[in-house]
This record gives sequence, C-alpha cells and structure tokens, in this order.
Amino acid sequence: MTSESILAARIDDFYPVIPAGGVGSRLWPMSRPERPKFLIDLLGTGSTLIQDTVARLEPLGAEVMIVTGARHADAVAEQVPQVPAGNVVAEPSPRDSMAAIALAAAIIEARHGEQIMGSFAADHVIPDGEAFRAVVVTAIQAARTGKVVTIGIEPTEPSSAFGYIQAGEPLADAPGAFAVEAFTEKPDPDTAAAMLAQGGYAWNAGMFVVSTSVLLGHLARLQPMLEAGVRAIAAAWDDPGRDDALAEYWPTLTKIAIDHAIAEPVAAAGGVAMVPGPFSWHDVGDFDSLATLLTPDADGVTRIGRVPAVSAVDSPGLTVIGGSKPLAVVGIADAVVVETDEAILITSRTAAQRVKDVDL
Amino acid sequence: MTSESILAARIDDFYPVIPAGGVGSRLWPMSRPERPKFLIDLLGTGSTLIQDTVARLEPLGAEVMIVTGARHADAVAEQVPQVPAGNVVAEPSPRDSMAAIALAAAIIEARHGEQIMGSFAADHVIPDGEAFRAVVVTAIQAARTGKVVTIGIEPTEPSSAFGYIQAGEPLADAPGAFAVEAFTEKPDPDTAAAMLAQGGYAWNAGMFVVSTSVLLGHLARLQPMLEAGVRAIAAAWDDPGRDDALAEYWPTLTKIAIDHAIAEPVAAAGGVAMVPGPFSWHDVGDFDSLATLLTPDADGVTRIGRVPAVSAVDSPGLTVIGGSKPLAVVGIADAVVVETDEAILITSRTAAQRVKDVDL
Repeated sequence: MTSESILAARIDDFYPVIPAGGVGSRLWPMSRPERPKFLIDLLGTGSTLIQDTVARLEPLGAEVMIVTGARHADAVAEQVPQVPAGNVVAEPSPRDSMAAIALAAAIIEARHGEQIMGSFAADHVIPDGEAFRAVVVTAIQAARTGKVVTIGIEPTEPSSAFGYIQAGEPLADAPGAFAVEAFTEKPDPDTAAAMLAQGGYAWNAGMFVVSTSVLLGHLARLQPMLEAGVRAIAAAWDDPGRDDALAEYWPTLTKIAIDHAIAEPVAAAGGVAMVPGPFSWHDVGDFDSLATLLTPDADGVTRIGRVPAVSAVDSPGLTVIGGSKPLAVVGIADAVVVETDEAILITSRTAAQRVKDVDL
Repeated sequence: MTSESILAARIDDFYPVIPAGGVGSRLWPMSRPERPKFLIDLLGTGSTLIQDTVARLEPLGAEVMIVTGARHADAVAEQVPQVPAGNVVAEPSPRDSMAAIALAAAIIEARHGEQIMGSFAADHVIPDGEAFRAVVVTAIQAARTGKVVTIGIEPTEPSSAFGYIQAGEPLADAPGAFAVEAFTEKPDPDTAAAMLAQGGYAWNAGMFVVSTSVLLGHLARLQPMLEAGVRAIAAAWDDPGRDDALAEYWPTLTKIAIDHAIAEPVAAAGGVAMVPGPFSWHDVGDFDSLATLLTPDADGVTRIGRVPAVSAVDSPGLTVIGGSKPLAVVGIADAVVVETDEAILITSRTAAQRVKDVDL
C-alpha cells in the first residue's frame, strides 16, 4: 500500500457532521429566519454555503450527516439531495451545539460502532477544499490517539470576532498536531493583538475531529444527563420509536456549547490536540466582511448574484447584491445595497454590523 | 359695480399660458425624459404639478393655454382634460421660452384680438392659490398700463439658484407695482447675500403678465423674424394649414429665453414693472429641496407617495419616495431613497445635486 491508499483506507471510517444553525442576522435580507445563512448563495457562485460544505467534505469518502432545525430540514434535504434522508437530523428545538454534535455521534456509533467523526459548521467559507481536506486527514490521524482534535485557523489579523486556541508542544504520537493549552473567549482588540504578537494562537473555528467513543466518554463524565439523552434518542433513531424518543429526551438536554461542555475542560486536562489549518477560512458575518472577499468589477462596483444595471456617481466602494431594476447610487461612499424578493437594505460597510437591528 | 365685480370683469380678458418644459433631471427617477417634472405628483398629494398649476389659474375665469413638447402633448391632455384640445400647443421641437410664449400670444391675439396674457411655469409649487391669484390680479391691472409685468418672489434666503429682479420706485398709475431697474443672472452666494442685505431684490420666477399686443410689439422690434414666424403659425393655427405652417416656420424661430429677448432689454428702457409676490413659492429642483418642503412622520422618516414599511437604523433624516417592498436603511444620515417602476435611486440630501449625473 502506498501512503495515499493507506490514508484513503483510514478515511472510510470517518463521518463528517455538519451542524447547520444560526440565522446570520447581520446578513439580512439575504438571510432571514426562514432562510438562514447556510441556505443562501452568499458569494453569488451559484451554490449555497451548505452545498459548498457538503461538497468540500464528500471527497473524504464518508457519509455526511447534517443536524439542523426542524423548520429547515426540508430545505436542507432539497439543497443536498445526495445526503440520505436518515442523515438529516432535525432538531425539534434549538439546544445548542453540544446536543446537536453529541446526538450525531451517538447515531453514528449506534449504527456503526466506534468511528471517527468531524464536526464542521455549515456556513463557513473555505475556498481551497484540497488544502482543507489535507488538514482534516491529519486531524483524523491525531484523533486516533484518543484526543479531541481541533483545527486551528492561522490568524490573518488580530480579530476580536473569534475565540482563540493556545497551542503547546508538538505531540510525538500525532504528526502535525500540537497540544492545546487552553481555549480563550473572543478577546478585546488589544488582547488579540498581544496574542498574535506572542504567537502560538489560532482561531477557533469550531472544527472538532474525535472518536465517537472518546467524545461520548467525555460527555458521560462531564454532562451525564446529556450523554444519556442522546444515547436514548440514537438507539431509537432508525426505528419507529424515533419521534417518541425525541419528544421524551430532546427537551431535557442541557443547552450548552461544545466549547464549554467538552473543549475547555478536556483541554485543561490535556486531552485536546490542535492541527494548524493554513488554508483560507472565512466566517462571513456581515456585508463588510462579505465585500472584502470579492473583487470589484472594472467600474469599481462589487456585485453578488444577478445584479441589474448600476450607475455609481461619486460613490466609491459600492457593493450591490441582487436587485430587480436599474440602480443609481449618488454621493454615498462604501454603500451596500441588497435587494431580495422580500426587501431592500441600504447600508454602508462601516455600519454593516448594525443590520441586525433592522426591525421589519 | 363694486370693486370686486370690476376685477372679475377685467379678468374675463385674461389668458393664462403655461409653458410646460424642462425634465427636472435632478429629480430622476421620479422625473424622466418621457415623464418630466411637470407631469409627476412631486409632493405625493395625488395631483401632478401641471394639474396643480391649471387648478391654480382656472379660478381667474380665463381659458388656459399650455405650450409643451410634442412628445408630452398627449400626457398633458390626459392629465388636464378640462383644457380644450386647441389650447394644448405642441412644439415640434424645443425652441426655448420666447418662441413658446410668443406663439401662445399670437394664437390668443389671432383668436380674440388684444388680450392680457400671463405666463406661469407648469412645475412650480405655490401652496396658497388665493394669495397667488390676488397678486396676478394686481399684475393684470399693471399690464393694462402697457408694461411688461413680472411677479417678483420675495426671497426667503440668499439663493444662488435663481435670477433676481431689482425693483425701483412704485408706479403711480399701477397700484402695487414697481419699476424694474434690471434683471440679473443667477448670482454667486456672496452677491446674493449682498443683494438681500441691500433690499429691493426679488427672485425672478419667470412669471410675466402682459398685453399680447405689447409683447408682440416688443418682439417685432427686438426679434422681428421670431415675431413674424409666430404670427404666421398663429394665423393658420385653427385651420387645416396648422401643420404646414408649423413645419415651415417653427424650425426658423430663434432659440432664446424670454428674459434675454424681452425682459432685459425692455427693462433697460423702463418698460417692465414688478408686482411683489409675497406668497410661498418653490421651484423644487432636487430631492434636498423637495424634502425641505415636507414634514417627517412620527418615526422621523419623510415619505412621499405610497411607501412600504421602512426601518431606519441610525439613519436620521431619511426620505423615502415610493417603493415596492419593505426597506431598511442602516447607518446613513440624510439618505434619500427613490423607487419607481423603472429604477431605484439612493443618494443623500447633500449629494442630491449630482443626481443629474446618473448614467442609466
């Protein structure tokens, strides 16, 4: 066997899980409660973020599982018809990321026994799928040593929008992986700058690769009710008893993020490893960061999607997303104009954070 | 006879003329070449500016005549059906204001002999019709003394957007009228401020009241080819020969404004009088001056026409004109958003002058 085929064989027991939640309220009206960020073609490429995420993970050769809110399960199934119906897990109500990921782990283990799983958000932008997958393969290898493995994104700026992972020494038994000293919450800008200057910090993109048994084992110790609940639901998942089990146990599950439930306490005990992710990664939260990702046309206007004729007069840095009729912008710098079937938004790149305050 | 009935009797020989031209390109997309300013409901009151203008002049008891471009004659006839078809004069091509007003004078005189005419733009805003008409009656009386009478608008600010009329002594034989020393072109702001400080200056709103014979007499002396041309067209106006006469003479008429052709040279010779117009008057040229005329709603948003739901976040001074779907504006001060069936404009009140540069 060549090393390539060894890797391919190992990947057969890898199950990517995609938690698909979060509206993206600063991307209104592109995103809306009934059409959250992961369901939209954010970059105007012709595919939605969840379609891109599934396509990015499929070449790893595993069976993808998606966990999403019940109201979005049909739309998800429609957008990624290649994912089997039984692998679109519909949450009856939002119970935060630990319940979603643990239920997926429990279903995978109930079906297949212990496997390696990876959890990757449905709405992140990663242009280079090859580079991403190479890192995931390294993380899978590290996960086989019994660690909870996170992929740490190499920071490109001292952002205060993300939590950080503090890396320690390289791990002898896991090539390419490092010990994790600690997870830190989103820092203030000064702290973020100091962390970048010091080095050894990576962005926490919420990517975890871990054996289902290791994950559920930590959970049994740290959140036993939660572990028991997802095990009970998973046991009935592929049976007629699924709905009853969901109805009985789902509402009892503790609402907690995986970072607080597992990553932070396990890291403190030396059980978390980090694989650096040198690929380009974006968690596009608002129209300013979205515009940053794109290249303006020759007229200086950045366009996303099908945009009608635009005339920009004394309006440098204009971004136009969608629209149904010719548009003129006069004397407004860095304007962002979004038109969907339902509404029109006009803002500026500097004000884009406040879009979440729109009341319509 | 009481003085009121004397006035009424005198008004029976008064013929208001409404030159209806000018696109209003800074009011795009409300105004468009095929739907100029005078054809739009600029204030969102339910009537267009030309409808308001006709309604304002009708109570004077005279037969209104409108001179407009051939491409707008049908729309004018549709908007003011009470104006007889023979009184909607369609210019085959634009030849400036002197040709338009002189042709109207010549048609009136050919039909009725010497009469008093008054010329009033189709697209000015005058909220108080009563006050306006009282001033016109004074101007008609002054015109009977053989003067070219202009109505001078009392300046409310040192505007550099209008020409000014410099008033002289009161005229003994025309109560309420003053001699005119001179007409001045649009001044720079400093000059305008100095003129207001000095006093005796009024805005030139292009309102002229004059006997048809006096007007055509001045024209025969100052622009004899123009006078001969409009006389020839007018002689055939109510005959089958109208189109031939228009085709023969109209293209030969000198393109000149009435200010340059008549008002300035005749004023220099002492032949022009001014009646002060103390009524509120607006020549709304752009969205900034339009917004100034209107009162914001309780939420601070100024609305014109039928406007859908609006959410203004950190966007004080917002003006919204029309629209087809809910609109949010975030973080843009003094924004102006205009949506018509054909296009969307986004600008700010300070940039509103540059709307004319839109290229769509």
